[in-house]
Amino acid sequence: MGPVRLALLAVVALAAAGEAVYIPYNTSAGVVAGKLNVHVVPHTHDDVGWLKTVDQYYVGSNNSIQGACVQNVLDSLIPALLKDENRKFIYVEQAFFQRWWRNQNDMIKDTVKGLISSGRLELINGGMCMHDEATVHYIDMIDQTTLGHKFIKEEFGQIPRIGWQIDPFGHSAVQVGFDAFYFFRIDYQDRDTRKETKELEVVWRGSKSFGSSADIFAGIFPKNYEPPPGDFYFEVDDDSPVVQDDPLLFDYNVEERVNDFVAAALAQANITRTNHIMFTMGTDFKYQYAESWFRNMDKLIHYVNKDGRINALYSTPSIYTDAKYAANEQWPLKTNDFFPYADNPNAYWTGYFTSRPALKRYVRMMSGYYLAARQLEFFKGKSKSGPTTDYLGDALALAQHHDAVTGTEKQHVANDYAKRLSIGYTRAQELVSTSLACLTELGSKSHCSSPTTKFSQCLLLNITYCPPSQTDFSKGKSLVVLVYNSLGWKREDVLRVPVFSDSIVVHDSEGREVESQLLPIASASLNIRDKHVKAYLGTSPGAKPKFWLAFPVSVPPLGFNTYFVSSMKKSASVSSKSTIYSSQGSENSNLQVGQGNLKLQYNAAGAFSLYSDSRTLIEANFEQKYKYYIGQDGNGSDPQASGAYIFRPNGTVPIKTDSQVPLTVLRGPIVDEVHQQINSWIYQITRVYKGKDYVETEFIVGPVPTDDGNGKEVAAEIVSNMATNKTFYTDSSGRDFIKRIRDYRSEWKIEVHQPIAGNYYPVNLGIYVEDGNKELSVLVDRSIGGSSIKDGQIELMLHRRLLHDDGRGVAEALNETVCLDNQCEGLIIEGKYYLKIDPQGEGSRWRRTFGQEIYSPLLLAFSEQDGGNWANSHIPKFSAMDPTYSLPDSVALLTLQELEDGSVLLRFAHLYEAGEHKDLSALASVDLKRVFPNKKIGKIIETSLSANQERAAMEKKRLKWKVQGPPADGKVVRGGPMDPSKLVIELGPMEIRTFIVNFERSISGKQLL
Amino acid sequence: MGPVRLALLAVVALAAAGEAVYIPYNTSAGVVAGKLNVHVVPHTHDDVGWLKTVDQYYVGSNNSIQGACVQNVLDSLIPALLKDENRKFIYVEQAFFQRWWRNQNDMIKDTVKGLISSGRLELINGGMCMHDEATVHYIDMIDQTTLGHKFIKEEFGQIPRIGWQIDPFGHSAVQVGFDAFYFFRIDYQDRDTRKETKELEVVWRGSKSFGSSADIFAGIFPKNYEPPPGDFYFEVDDDSPVVQDDPLLFDYNVEERVNDFVAAALAQANITRTNHIMFTMGTDFKYQYAESWFRNMDKLIHYVNKDGRINALYSTPSIYTDAKYAANEQWPLKTNDFFPYADNPNAYWTGYFTSRPALKRYVRMMSGYYLAARQLEFFKGKSKSGPTTDYLGDALALAQHHDAVTGTEKQHVANDYAKRLSIGYTRAQELVSTSLACLTELGSKSHCSSPTTKFSQCLLLNITYCPPSQTDFSKGKSLVVLVYNSLGWKREDVLRVPVFSDSIVVHDSEGREVESQLLPIASASLNIRDKHVKAYLGTSPGAKPKFWLAFPVSVPPLGFNTYFVSSMKKSASVSSKSTIYSSQGSENSNLQVGQGNLKLQYNAAGAFSLYSDSRTLIEANFEQKYKYYIGQDGNGSDPQASGAYIFRPNGTVPIKTDSQVPLTVLRGPIVDEVHQQINSWIYQITRVYKGKDYVETEFIVGPVPTDDGNGKEVAAEIVSNMATNKTFYTDSSGRDFIKRIRDYRSEWKIEVHQPIAGNYYPVNLGIYVEDGNKELSVLVDRSIGGSSIKDGQIELMLHRRLLHDDGRGVAEALNETVCLDNQCEGLIIEGKYYLKIDPQGEGSRWRRTFGQEIYSPLLLAFSEQDGGNWANSHIPKFSAMDPTYSLPDSVALLTLQELEDGSVLLRFAHLYEAGEHKDLSALASVDLKRVFPNKKIGKIIETSLSANQERAAMEKKRLKWKVQGPPADGKVVRGGPMDPSKLVIELGPMEIRTFIVNFERSISGKQLL
Repeated sequence: MGPVRLALLAVVALAAAGEAVYIPYNTSAGVVAGKLNVHVVPHTHDDVGWLKTVDQYYVGSNNSIQGACVQNVLDSLIPALLKDENRKFIYVEQAFFQRWWRNQNDMIKDTVKGLISSGRLELINGGMCMHDEATVHYIDMIDQTTLGHKFIKEEFGQIPRIGWQIDPFGHSAVQVGFDAFYFFRIDYQDRDTRKETKELEVVWRGSKSFGSSADIFAGIFPKNYEPPPGDFYFEVDDDSPVVQDDPLLFDYNVEERVNDFVAAALAQANITRTNHIMFTMGTDFKYQYAESWFRNMDKLIHYVNKDGRINALYSTPSIYTDAKYAANEQWPLKTNDFFPYADNPNAYWTGYFTSRPALKRYVRMMSGYYLAARQLEFFKGKSKSGPTTDYLGDALALAQHHDAVTGTEKQHVANDYAKRLSIGYTRAQELVSTSLACLTELGSKSHCSSPTTKFSQCLLLNITYCPPSQTDFSKGKSLVVLVYNSLGWKREDVLRVPVFSDSIVVHDSEGREVESQLLPIASASLNIRDKHVKAYLGTSPGAKPKFWLAFPVSVPPLGFNTYFVSSMKKSASVSSKSTIYSSQGSENSNLQVGQGNLKLQYNAAGAFSLYSDSRTLIEANFEQKYKYYIGQDGNGSDPQASGAYIFRPNGTVPIKTDSQVPLTVLRGPIVDEVHQQINSWIYQITRVYKGKDYVETEFIVGPVPTDDGNGKEVAAEIVSNMATNKTFYTDSSGRDFIKRIRDYRSEWKIEVHQPIAGNYYPVNLGIYVEDGNKELSVLVDRSIGGSSIKDGQIELMLHRRLLHDDGRGVAEALNETVCLDNQCEGLIIEGKYYLKIDPQGEGSRWRRTFGQEIYSPLLLAFSEQDGGNWANSHIPKFSAMDPTYSLPDSVALLTLQELEDGSVLLRFAHLYEAGEHKDLSALASVDLKRVFPNKKIGKIIETSLSANQERAAMEKKRLKWKVQGPPADGKVVRGGPMDPSKLVIELGPMEIRTFIVNFERSISGKQLL
Repeated sequence: MGPVRLALLAVVALAAAGEAVYIPYNTSAGVVAGKLNVHVVPHTHDDVGWLKTVDQYYVGSNNSIQGACVQNVLDSLIPALLKDENRKFIYVEQAFFQRWWRNQNDMIKDTVKGLISSGRLELINGGMCMHDEATVHYIDMIDQTTLGHKFIKEEFGQIPRIGWQIDPFGHSAVQVGFDAFYFFRIDYQDRDTRKETKELEVVWRGSKSFGSSADIFAGIFPKNYEPPPGDFYFEVDDDSPVVQDDPLLFDYNVEERVNDFVAAALAQANITRTNHIMFTMGTDFKYQYAESWFRNMDKLIHYVNKDGRINALYSTPSIYTDAKYAANEQWPLKTNDFFPYADNPNAYWTGYFTSRPALKRYVRMMSGYYLAARQLEFFKGKSKSGPTTDYLGDALALAQHHDAVTGTEKQHVANDYAKRLSIGYTRAQELVSTSLACLTELGSKSHCSSPTTKFSQCLLLNITYCPPSQTDFSKGKSLVVLVYNSLGWKREDVLRVPVFSDSIVVHDSEGREVESQLLPIASASLNIRDKHVKAYLGTSPGAKPKFWLAFPVSVPPLGFNTYFVSSMKKSASVSSKSTIYSSQGSENSNLQVGQGNLKLQYNAAGAFSLYSDSRTLIEANFEQKYKYYIGQDGNGSDPQASGAYIFRPNGTVPIKTDSQVPLTVLRGPIVDEVHQQINSWIYQITRVYKGKDYVETEFIVGPVPTDDGNGKEVAAEIVSNMATNKTFYTDSSGRDFIKRIRDYRSEWKIEVHQPIAGNYYPVNLGIYVEDGNKELSVLVDRSIGGSSIKDGQIELMLHRRLLHDDGRGVAEALNETVCLDNQCEGLIIEGKYYLKIDPQGEGSRWRRTFGQEIYSPLLLAFSEQDGGNWANSHIPKFSAMDPTYSLPDSVALLTLQELEDGSVLLRFAHLYEAGEHKDLSALASVDLKRVFPNKKIGKIIETSLSANQERAAMEKKRLKWKVQGPPADGKVVRGGPMDPSKLVIELGPMEIRTFIVNFERSISGKQLL
């Protein structure tokens, strides 16, 4: 040959070329006793929004950000499953599945139904999204799960058995009931310990109220939710070596790949009990072309089983769970929750407890609004044509995703969630206005849809924007304020409406004048009003109101009352103007506010010092302060920055501790307010209502300055001298309070690297400390991160503005801004927290009952009347319930919702844990006949929590796991079966009971009244 | 609401949620008269090796280099095509398709057959690969196309109509006949001109010998072979906006996407004749998940046609071609070829004409060997069980790919091609040895498979490695050299065998002593022997031979002769030792070599100066020199480096022009050799054979040093004083010579930016210049880049070693090395070129006839005999043809190959162009009865070139395109139809005729003899 460079003469062994090499793979293996069984579980993890919006992920647009198209996943899955009847797949996120489903023709639908009914395609978890567990309220968890489960039940007759919360960043003690629950994100130290002791799979008992009755099998993945170590990623373009078994081609590698698989299995078996292990074959947005995975898994199963050392099978978490159950083992017990989550010594995922606090508040507001709106939709009768609450329900469900309300999505995706909430709210608002009009109008008919009364609502009341209140009272018109109470008990509260005139009178529905108070609106509030109305509505907000008009209201349970605001220049009982007193600090060292039992006494520095309640005789000193943490920039030797996920403080800066904070005090008959400009970007208003024995603190924080190059994480502190012994309590998703001990974990030994971030916990309802004599409780208006970093102290992370990405994928700094005319500045946060000090053992009543009122604020609807004719044509006051009835203080009506088929979803919750309150933790009863006095219940079925199966059937099927160690002590109180003739529902502590009710045709002319 | 940051209140118009939005797309459009028709042509371009090997591309391994898996493409294509009967796809590369096909089960095969027979899946181009056109010999083009077409015909009964050479880097005037031919890589200046004049679509008349009879419609794509500008890439994870037409989702964009499509269509229509344009919807390795493309194309076709401005249809190049033809237009004429290709002013793709010169030589050697081996396979009878030539045929087919023999693949891929050739050679060698043994053994039977005579062959003869020649003659053994001639005419040649002894005698098959000559082996040759045998075979080469033994041989057409080399110490006629004379230059200013008609006279400087041929009386002065170009490193302001594709010289460095080159002269009865160590890494041997009237120059070049940081491109120069007027001639793929004029293009005006690289052309057979009196011709042993950069000069780029990648995707510098014991140094090239000066008009005979001998060297097989018994048991001399017959000098037997079904593929080529030689350009005849004197032809069918249809049928279907301008002048000479009774095949100039022959059972006992 001419070239010196000749061939590589290595002649490989090849089969005769040209021959067919079609290989039928044997994938039929089931579980084999006596062998190590590798459950190969094909799955995809499809975030319902993260780097792209949910719709972008679905259709596969915006791929320059992330190549991901869920339509590809599901489109390609069907032929792949049809190709081999042993192939299996689980699909999780119903928001995507539903989008896809409605795009399919009947042929595909029939095919998919067949795949689902035969178990080849299993819909697990089954909520609209894989909800977060730290920043999500339990009512939202239930709602979003119910929404997904309902679809699965209706379309496919299936009931998801398995919780598959594989990605959320830590896990709450509150879970929707399943046979088993799989996930992976737990603290790295916890995981390491569990690997050594083979305790990655446990029986989890989250709530002490339920004892073993709510035990669930919890499987924690050893590393992540991806294929095992050893290169088993088979997405199109993945790098892992494909199984090359064509003898006619080079690089035949069956032996190597089988060895890799067996090695991975043995390694995992080594840290797992029983001879069953699970390989999670998939990860984020994989199976864009499903065949690419199945082709290789077919081969692996075929050749691994031919090899014979272990047994590999196509499986699902259900099959895996059943295999675990059949092993009849006793499992280690796990109590409490899995917070906080750290994946590295300096990487505590506790920043997201607060990230995007405005979005978190928006979600919480909408959640409460959705609850109320569904009640009103039920009262009116659900409409097929008019506006419904459905879109809001859908938007809220999406917002529970673990990259939604968590604040860990990209900004444009956060905007998308907000847009959806806004659309949902707009529709629900229309429905609410219509329903209220129907309920108020005399003579309006059942399924009233076009009432004449027009109500409007004021979503932007918090920034003093409420167009209906701009009514010109001078022309004899008055403002009608209809106040709806979605709780099952009567409420007394104080409303606030911005007004222009200083000569205002308020009347109640019976024509009586109501005492009221005018409070000059702080310029801090007015400043944000103009800007944000323009920025978000694109319109000018019009003239600035001068006063907040505050007046007390009283509203019956599940009902409304009406108030009338008008101008009456000559009246003696015109609204009181507040007295105003400004202090620059030193001159008055003992300034006191509070017209009722509760009094606050301010010291010279302007931080209040003495809290005294004349009813409980509690007296306590404490301060209210602010500080910020400097967010680690990640530029030094340790690259871990503080970001959307991770709280990584690099120094603490107190705000105004040494100097005095000037304060302005507004006093009046209803409320006293203390206004303080803490610094140029923190404004605080502390309120003590005459009739209420807690402190309400409103804060306006931002724009957080970053011109010093530092990201900042702003926290409010409540500092007392209570001896709290490192201990504090935070709620789990709004339910069970869990005891937290600083720098300590109850079930494993922690090595402390992050003494601040590592002690943060999610707060959805509240946080409290106690010293044996008293309890200091703080309740919040949204989910938030909180801690007690020092004894006697509570802190709440209010706002975070950061300049660096923390390297967990979102690839954006959490630096929220608001833009107007192309000028952007940092986001301003407005919100409230509530504080109360109770005698030891008494705090729970306020936390639980008032906590529910924070969740479900009074719903205001505004109208106008000309002269005094409203009462002639309208019902001014209403309760759906028997006028003499009210739900127990310990029970909340979580759901009252008419379904498409006319049946009604009803859900009650006991608000107290076992032993939490000496009286209120008792068994409680709801008398349905009095809840619905004017309706006859035709049929009522108790169901599982997500309302997709009868409770009795569920209980029968429920797996009862054996636990190592002594049996659970203490008696668990649960409500007994409901007697259909009595229609009384009992609820034990923390119990939630769900029913599907069919009402018979309305008894009276009007369906409801 | 709590947070100031409220929703984005933009409420978009949405359909009612929850409704099904299944949309059936209307994709049924055909061509619509009076509208602009956009032919949407879904395709993938799958390189049969480039960055990964062909097998890696097929199975999708090595994805870290490039995410590409052809199995995905074909697997996903089938369900996608089944989903909508209007969807269409073309598939091109049969190497991939065949790999896939043999993996399929019968169900899939049946489905695919249906898709193909209905035209929904069209196999176009149809060769095993999309062959290169610059560095590929026409015989290889034909073979690889035949191989692909055969499969398509046999499995599917289909005949590809369309040439689809979309990626090769320039286009040869030699093409396999199709109705139309589509591609995109032409010079950017040419393209710009053609866009202005709407001449991207032309009728191409590549060969002047054929005139209009071989006219083909050629469509040049306006930009590339990808979707049109405007973001229409729909691969999984591609960035282009998908068509979002679900009204329930955000980002609905149907109007925008329709507008984008229409705009792209109108822009293309603006540079295209007729109202048909083609959108090439695909690119390299796309359709990994085919549905992702079809889903979007379905929507585009549906909505674009709904829009109505233009008509979009699923189409194929066949449908498009028919539409163009139906338009009945006259098209502009294009003659000659499309070389060289530049995509930028400084980016001439003329480097790859030489890149990987060793691989190019290996391919060429194997090509000639394959031709011979198939003859011997036919003679023996094709075996189902034993070794065959099939693997070599397959390996050669792959090697014709436009990233294979081109040298533009990654090193590991080049190794893969070499490995395949090596395996193929090893098998073919076995077959050849067996066949020769069968042919030689007396009494061996038809379909002889296990003869006793063992032959071996010496592939590494060029590096002096030939184990059989190490026979120890001292023990009475002698070396049997069987010499096979695959040409149809008798040959006289000089063999060279390395030997150890200086006392050697050679006998011919009739026992006559043959004159022979011993030439000491140059140390340059021995040095590379040791190293490369170790590097490539992994074994030590053993003792070093001392001499080349040269002796003349004479071999009958399609037959062999046998020679015997032995030691005969006492014989008078022992082999002559060469006389040796060494010069240091100056002392002898008129050194002359040459024992026959041709003499070379060397001047003092060692470059020879006078060529004189006593037969032709030609006398001419010229020099033989070397130089190198410095490869541009791309680091300056212009990033274009010289690399595997692109020749971008940055300065010329002459090698040893001023100083004298010492020379050593070996003289003897057979050959005179002049040895010159040009510099430390170039060794040159110039040979003048007594019986031959041309000069043979062997060069050993390398390792090219790069320690100065420069890549180098080494060229040999032949510098004469001929006045060649900027003009030179290079062959097209070994066929038509095309006139080249420096800095000029015959059909468009060139702006010269690269006066060297822009004048390089591919040389497969040879290059020549002429001055009216004489022709200076140089023939090559592989494809190579060549030019005439100055008048009277010819240069050949012999070797390229570069340090930078040239940015065309391969992402490796072309820096070939050879490694031994982990020590790597630059690749050494060994090769030959041949030079002759003829009287004007006489050069073609040598170029054509000797050119064919270079392509088909004598095949040597070695055996041993003990004593002189060979002749007793063996037939020493053989010709398959009638002993008195020989093919005309103008005709070569291109193919003689037994097919699986026992029929025989027969292909003859006329080697001369019309008018090229006064005698030899005439119509030539082949008398088949004398070619096969011992066989009876039962049936003979003339076919198309690729043997997949009867020629008559093809001629009938062939589209006759109209051409603008006057009709083609001159009479075209073509052979007439063959009379089956006469069995005489006529061939006009450049004509190639292909036949399928069925021989009747052998006439004599032995099938062949």
